[in-house]
Amino acid sequence: MALRSRSPETHITIWGRNATQLQEIRQRKLADDIHTDAAVAVAESDFVILCTPVEVMGELASVISPHLPVKAVVTDAGSIKVSVTEGLVPVLGRRFVGGHPMAGSERSGIAAARADLFAGAPCILTPIETTDPDAVRQAAAFWTLLGGRITLLSPEEHDRIVARLSHLPHALAFALVNLVAETLPDGAKLLAGGSFRDATRVAASDPALWTGILTGNRTELAAALREMSRLLKSMAVALGEERPDDIFDFLKRAKIYRDSLPLPLPDDPS
Amino acid sequence: MALRSRSPETHITIWGRNATQLQEIRQRKLADDIHTDAAVAVAESDFVILCTPVEVMGELASVISPHLPVKAVVTDAGSIKVSVTEGLVPVLGRRFVGGHPMAGSERSGIAAARADLFAGAPCILTPIETTDPDAVRQAAAFWTLLGGRITLLSPEEHDRIVARLSHLPHALAFALVNLVAETLPDGAKLLAGGSFRDATRVAASDPALWTGILTGNRTELAAALREMSRLLKSMAVALGEERPDDIFDFLKRAKIYRDSLPLPLPDDPS
Repeated sequence: MALRSRSPETHITIWGRNATQLQEIRQRKLADDIHTDAAVAVAESDFVILCTPVEVMGELASVISPHLPVKAVVTDAGSIKVSVTEGLVPVLGRRFVGGHPMAGSERSGIAAARADLFAGAPCILTPIETTDPDAVRQAAAFWTLLGGRITLLSPEEHDRIVARLSHLPHALAFALVNLVAETLPDGAKLLAGGSFRDATRVAASDPALWTGILTGNRTELAAALREMSRLLKSMAVALGEERPDDIFDFLKRAKIYRDSLPLPLPDDPS
Repeated sequence: MALRSRSPETHITIWGRNATQLQEIRQRKLADDIHTDAAVAVAESDFVILCTPVEVMGELASVISPHLPVKAVVTDAGSIKVSVTEGLVPVLGRRFVGGHPMAGSERSGIAAARADLFAGAPCILTPIETTDPDAVRQAAAFWTLLGGRITLLSPEEHDRIVARLSHLPHALAFALVNLVAETLPDGAKLLAGGSFRDATRVAASDPALWTGILTGNRTELAAALREMSRLLKSMAVALGEERPDDIFDFLKRAKIYRDSLPLPLPDDPS
């Protein structure tokens, strides 16, 4: 949808498996070709974006690899990069560039699509030493065309940062919801105000998709969960020992950092 | 502002100490009288609402108590109720009803005021055995007039529920921001997407106000922090032991509960 509106001359081929979603794409003329065979879909493509759960990307790469034009660049939109890079580079070689457009929400499917989803969104690319610089340029140009802001990171840096900026907030949302569900009477949900709603918005995300992401980044995420667990316990201790000055310092530091975040674009849904 | 628009005939007296805020209230004609002496402000009042940090309410109650008309009802808008009730009932007696309108945001001051702030908001009242039923009726009528939905709880039930539905989300927001600030390079903040922003919105709240709330509910909040710490550690263990089915079940349960929350009113800022 974003590509259609920003580059109407680009020929867009869609591969998918869900007949309802494909029908909707067809009716709204969002693609020039629609295929259910990935090998056929990529056969004449210059630029291919894999948008599937991360755990099936390796298999998909093996399916398309023999049919890709020699010069085709392949990138992906997966939320983890070490395992994706390890899985895809041996299959796709120097023309693969790992990517992670940090946009989207807890919703999925064509009903949640928006042409301005990537406007102002951070788009991370994770080339490695062997990646073709021309492939990186093409991937950067693609996301820039859609309005994204490019950042280059190694796959390891990406997974370490995203574990704390995205996967941990998701894990906290899932855990906070389950804590409330298990410890409070059911009627308590009528009292849920803005802080609980915002903190748990992403707990409504697709559980299968997120199981793949969280387990795919298990080492960094487990470390982040332990760091968080320690911080929460030290807050509990400071409360128990009645050290309000330490609580105040903790809150003050958080406010200063939170207030220093760059402003999101108006209406940023990501 | 809400009372002005829904009941223009009500005589409104404001007590405050911040000259800038009072000047703004005066200019916008949001009150009929403005006083900086609380004893004077309450002298002819039928219904008094204490809206200050919780830790100063006891002192304020002592100041106004000798000057209150005999039949005046007093309520408050504090985020904790056990300590407020213990502090205020001995001073104000049967005509005091603890209250907690669950509205508002991380912003404060007259600039953040909205006439529709309480529309659809849960408003909790926490009468105890000795509270005058007529005082409860008046407090309920007041918040209902402003659009709130009344729930009656004991002070203990309130503090237990709110520790998990509001104070814990705030504590998580403060801790998540500090974790990111301490463990990631400063440039990482440019990559903060929607999940981090939403999860940490309330970390921008007033640190002094929230130190009073968190320490005032220390016992319940410390318990909630320890429950959360345990959940996070068990997630870390499930990731480390590569038990994706357990992760999936955890995420699935969270989604079902989160999807079952009643819808907020459109444009609910609380």
